[in-house]
Amino acid sequence: MDKNAKDASLFRGVRHIGIAVRDTDAAVKLYTSLFEAKHVETMVSEEHGLKLTFLQVAGVNVELLEPIREDVPVAKFLKTKGEGFHHIALEVADIEKVLAALRKAGVKLVDETPRRGAHGNLIAFVHPSSTHGVMIELCQPV
Amino acid sequence: MDKNAKDASLFRGVRHIGIAVRDTDAAVKLYTSLFEAKHVETMVSEEHGLKLTFLQVAGVNVELLEPIREDVPVAKFLKTKGEGFHHIALEVADIEKVLAALRKAGVKLVDETPRRGAHGNLIAFVHPSSTHGVMIELCQPV
Repeated sequence: MDKNAKDASLFRGVRHIGIAVRDTDAAVKLYTSLFEAKHVETMVSEEHGLKLTFLQVAGVNVELLEPIREDVPVAKFLKTKGEGFHHIALEVADIEKVLAALRKAGVKLVDETPRRGAHGNLIAFVHPSSTHGVMIELCQPV
Repeated sequence: MDKNAKDASLFRGVRHIGIAVRDTDAAVKLYTSLFEAKHVETMVSEEHGLKLTFLQVAGVNVELLEPIREDVPVAKFLKTKGEGFHHIALEVADIEKVLAALRKAGVKLVDETPRRGAHGNLIAFVHPSSTHGVMIELCQPV
């Protein structure tokens, strides 16, 4: 891709694939021992009610999400859908511009305006009911 | 990663992310118009009972899977789970070696031995019940 094409694109890459888990330690053990995953970092976000673990698997970042409280969306997700793929985070150059285009097209948003996610990035989730069941996180790095 | 490290690794990258859909045309329209996806190819596999569509989204390959018959696993997946993330395909250097290690660790496999997938690659699916809900496709390119 030439420089101009890259500058013109709003979508810059996949930041991570989010997986909802009930037991982070067991998942880390499985993925590191059998799929050559590297354990990068584990942090607890009291604000979001999540234990977040970052792995690298086959060159891609994977975010494990384990709820630390029952009242967070990931806890509800685990109850209704079980463990598994939760979302895909796409890096965007201009999150407000992307949200405006989605809103104009009638796409349902979880977050109407960007908020701060892990590492202070600006994030917003798109509702999976508008995107063929795929929850998409838009992420504009700080 | 230096050459020796790469040669030593069995997992070489993410080939694609598979998404089960009911309406390929609608999904292609959504992802190309709002997420800058490029439509690479659509093919019908009578053998697998699937319409397969390859997109590139933010630099990552996405495979849309739409069943063309009711008796294929993706049709059952859509009935029980609905549209959404179906699997992630990891490119491996030696699929037999990876399957042997998974078998030894007691991981449940969908395919005990490799079979031919799209484009003639050797593939085998790992059962999501052993991998925290994530269906993993191992893919050794031809």
